[in-house]
Amino acid sequence: MISRLTQHKTGDSRHRRAFETRRRDKTPTSGQESRQSFSRFRSTETKLRVAVLGGLEEVGRNCTMIEYNGDIIIIDMGLQFPEEDMPGIDYIIPNIGYLKGKEKNIRGVIITHAHYDHIGGIPHLIPALGYPPIYGLPLTTAIIKKRQDDFRDLRPLNIHNITLNDKLRLGSFELEFFHLNHNIPDSMGVVVHTPEGTIIHSGDWKFDYQPVGEAPADLQRIAQIGASGVLALLSDSTNASHPGHQMSESEISSNLEEIVSKAPGRLIVGTFSSLLSRIRQIIEISEKQGKIVALDGYSMKSNIEIAKELGYMKFNPKTLIDLKRIDDYPNNKVVIMCTGAQGEKNASLMRIANGEHRTVRIIPGDTVVFSSSVIPGNERTVQRLKDTLFRKGAEVIHYQMMDVHAGGHAKADDVKLMVRLINPKYFVPIEGNHHLLHYNAKTVESLGFPKENIFIADNGQIMEFFRGTGKLTKEKVPADYVFVDGLGVSDETNVVLRDRQMLAEDGMIVVIATVNSKTGQLIQNPDIISRGFVFLKENKELIEDLRHRVKKLIHDSDPLSWADTNNIKNKIRDYVGQFLFTKTEKRPMVLPVVIEV
Amino acid sequence: MISRLTQHKTGDSRHRRAFETRRRDKTPTSGQESRQSFSRFRSTETKLRVAVLGGLEEVGRNCTMIEYNGDIIIIDMGLQFPEEDMPGIDYIIPNIGYLKGKEKNIRGVIITHAHYDHIGGIPHLIPALGYPPIYGLPLTTAIIKKRQDDFRDLRPLNIHNITLNDKLRLGSFELEFFHLNHNIPDSMGVVVHTPEGTIIHSGDWKFDYQPVGEAPADLQRIAQIGASGVLALLSDSTNASHPGHQMSESEISSNLEEIVSKAPGRLIVGTFSSLLSRIRQIIEISEKQGKIVALDGYSMKSNIEIAKELGYMKFNPKTLIDLKRIDDYPNNKVVIMCTGAQGEKNASLMRIANGEHRTVRIIPGDTVVFSSSVIPGNERTVQRLKDTLFRKGAEVIHYQMMDVHAGGHAKADDVKLMVRLINPKYFVPIEGNHHLLHYNAKTVESLGFPKENIFIADNGQIMEFFRGTGKLTKEKVPADYVFVDGLGVSDETNVVLRDRQMLAEDGMIVVIATVNSKTGQLIQNPDIISRGFVFLKENKELIEDLRHRVKKLIHDSDPLSWADTNNIKNKIRDYVGQFLFTKTEKRPMVLPVVIEV
Repeated sequence: MISRLTQHKTGDSRHRRAFETRRRDKTPTSGQESRQSFSRFRSTETKLRVAVLGGLEEVGRNCTMIEYNGDIIIIDMGLQFPEEDMPGIDYIIPNIGYLKGKEKNIRGVIITHAHYDHIGGIPHLIPALGYPPIYGLPLTTAIIKKRQDDFRDLRPLNIHNITLNDKLRLGSFELEFFHLNHNIPDSMGVVVHTPEGTIIHSGDWKFDYQPVGEAPADLQRIAQIGASGVLALLSDSTNASHPGHQMSESEISSNLEEIVSKAPGRLIVGTFSSLLSRIRQIIEISEKQGKIVALDGYSMKSNIEIAKELGYMKFNPKTLIDLKRIDDYPNNKVVIMCTGAQGEKNASLMRIANGEHRTVRIIPGDTVVFSSSVIPGNERTVQRLKDTLFRKGAEVIHYQMMDVHAGGHAKADDVKLMVRLINPKYFVPIEGNHHLLHYNAKTVESLGFPKENIFIADNGQIMEFFRGTGKLTKEKVPADYVFVDGLGVSDETNVVLRDRQMLAEDGMIVVIATVNSKTGQLIQNPDIISRGFVFLKENKELIEDLRHRVKKLIHDSDPLSWADTNNIKNKIRDYVGQFLFTKTEKRPMVLPVVIEV
Repeated sequence: MISRLTQHKTGDSRHRRAFETRRRDKTPTSGQESRQSFSRFRSTETKLRVAVLGGLEEVGRNCTMIEYNGDIIIIDMGLQFPEEDMPGIDYIIPNIGYLKGKEKNIRGVIITHAHYDHIGGIPHLIPALGYPPIYGLPLTTAIIKKRQDDFRDLRPLNIHNITLNDKLRLGSFELEFFHLNHNIPDSMGVVVHTPEGTIIHSGDWKFDYQPVGEAPADLQRIAQIGASGVLALLSDSTNASHPGHQMSESEISSNLEEIVSKAPGRLIVGTFSSLLSRIRQIIEISEKQGKIVALDGYSMKSNIEIAKELGYMKFNPKTLIDLKRIDDYPNNKVVIMCTGAQGEKNASLMRIANGEHRTVRIIPGDTVVFSSSVIPGNERTVQRLKDTLFRKGAEVIHYQMMDVHAGGHAKADDVKLMVRLINPKYFVPIEGNHHLLHYNAKTVESLGFPKENIFIADNGQIMEFFRGTGKLTKEKVPADYVFVDGLGVSDETNVVLRDRQMLAEDGMIVVIATVNSKTGQLIQNPDIISRGFVFLKENKELIEDLRHRVKKLIHDSDPLSWADTNNIKNKIRDYVGQFLFTKTEKRPMVLPVVIEV
């Protein structure tokens, strides 16, 4: 079924079409016209195929693929932070197994905004896909390019700026873009006109009627796109289960203003370096109140630099001072902005709290603000960080106490408004764990939207659209986790992870027996090494006992029965495992080594 | 300083006084009188010492010690569930290092209620303390006794029922008790009259004006105790940072009623087996609506049995049916109540969701209710559990959507009311992480309570009271974590834990070199075993490369420089560690083994 769809284009025509962008008329092109212009691409037998490769079973590693008649576009290429049962894993990226052998068909990669769960997979996946062209708004492309500095061995990206007025022709697809609000500027929705109808991908979004430093979401444009007929809307599920309308950045601003003005001493704000809307607000508010701002964290500095260069932040250059100069100012004029509000081990805030920071120590009278909500899994670390800050005499303000958290995602009423404006035939909840997709679907169902036209898909599950009718098929393309683990990238790390979990729970014990290769007799006492099992000093007797028992086990066994040493190794493993469990109720990993000399 | 206070009593007098309980008069004894009656105990030089041994830096392992003139009482003896950086640890219990050598001074252990964070340390600590008498209300003692069944090797506990009308004379102390609300019946506050003044310990509590199946908190009694003069109040910090008044069990009941009546098919309620108020409500509501209830989970069944026996639950015996018989009833008449709302690995709900339960499978139309709030650290597991349930066709209701969570702890307005009723001279926030103690203190400060009379202490930090004046001293008695790890109990597991964390992150690699003991020459190729490091199939070359390098390293090193094999072992460890980090950016634990034959 797949091969029928992949009619390879020549590299030449692909590149010509990839760059065929044109300005949008001031009077927006009606979708009707736009779809008519596709008749020349329409193939009588070809179905439109949509698969979300990442982001349907997790918050993170967002990646959506749209395929028609041998043309493929990809929207977003994010990373996901590991779950607690994935020790040692750096992060998880989308599985592009389906795209192997189809690299030539990829007409472009569109990035909706510059957050890591939408761009983080790029350095790992783009080379594997043969460097297809990437498109994004200016802040997005600038942050992507900056991040590539960490991967110096790679070729430069084939990356292009677009504007919200551009139309982009990519193979069978014509793309338009529209403005939405989030908590980083240049967040956009993507309109994909295809020969089978129009697909809209929302990216991360909220409707902000009074945003700070950017325009409100373009409701008129969204309505016009909707009026011209939309086949399917793929939309953000993150907060869709929360009732009401997501708060405006201007509400957050007035909370922040109060905090900045009331801080009796220094104000230390912990946040994400990518939460650029919040960062901008804090700089602007501090400036207004005659305070200076010192930044800490490389990524925060470089993001601000980019945003300022592109005109997304406007402030007096004197407002930002070097962290080393904070002591030149009265405490109540100092705002320090740093990374680490999630309790990240090596981020600034953690080092400041623990007294390990080069220049900043917590002093009584400091106020510390956590200006982002806690990501599930980080709660305890953040709690301990707060404890430490309180111990050193700081005040701690978190969003439970005053609302300064992210708030970048559509809530139920926003979702309903979006569906009413766009009026799609099909609705596909994306960007969230499975249960969040269900809650998003429920919100839309409550409008009377037909349940059978809502597709709750799995990662990699193909949605087909043909002659106006959509279908959630049973076909699944590869979507397993792909792990980034140090310098390695692999989708076969399961054995390794299982071992790590086992080692973490009960540790391990190595039993080394050196035997005469001819007689099978032990040459010396077995060596026993244990790590992470039980505290050995307290268990010397246990280990001595074990040593004697292994000795006896080998002595009593017939070397002729060994075939190779596997037989006796298995015997040792089983025996030691059982013995230790009886004695300790722990099940360490047992590694028997038999050396024949 | 300590020795001065410990005037050993004869075992005889201790026992006489420990059992000297007497009914409280219907007209409550005025505290004034009560304190006067202590003059005979008052020693001119002796200070009253209070230390919270567990529960000031965590939620859990609650344990408070009060000491006067060689008499010691202990309030609560709980456990704490491990943090995410304590892999393999079962739980953490209070440190009783200070009580070693003072076992004979312990006049009694009072348990405020039957939750594990208040009783869980008993089987491990009571034997070490020489089985001092334990006192509690009937449900509390019954659940403690039931739990001892899991520890068959222990002597029977010296455990005694009290009633809310009892006074208990324990050495220098006279104890009274008063009724508070929580989410398990028989939760009480403890009044400790001492020669230096009256100390009140709140236990876990809320004020419920309309509780279900029990009396409201005894506000009149609390006011009377307060009026008679209170030196210090130790009070629950868990929810003190939340504004307003904690919800009533009757509000929760009406939410639950709606859920039970609206469930279109079977209703599956996941909860804690110790959340007896919630369990009672669900049984009663189901009975009222003509539904039957099937229980799963050993501890849930035994707790209900105990509660029913003691009269804390009243229902028609026919309401409870065996889980195996649920198919005899129409789906919309079936309520299944089980453990596992926190996503616990082996609890019923997890097994039901994963299709691993003996009798219950999720069927479309099931409604699953999580009736407890998620404990920090469990969020992701619970999210995955919800995903699984949705996948199998169930509806999932969590407290974000309809409030059915625990709600057992005082909020800010409750704390304020308590302080106004009791009007203590000193306030000691207990039961919470350090930052929660601060928030509790802040709530009380907002009443104009003098800041210097609020003691934010650490675990083990001694508070002294002498002639009406309290002092938070710098003296600290042992309070380090004590880990229960399989069958072992130890406060020296740090090395083991560090190893487990390291093994979990990057795995380990064993390098075994067999050398001639005389020449130091390798006898055969080094053996290399790795687990949890990198996926070996993908790294065969890496391991081969490593083997050659180790071979060369040993070959090039001078055996005469070895002294013993430690020298060459260190060389191997350093070299292999550095080599692997360069190649993989992982730092596995390297275990070099040199065998001389």
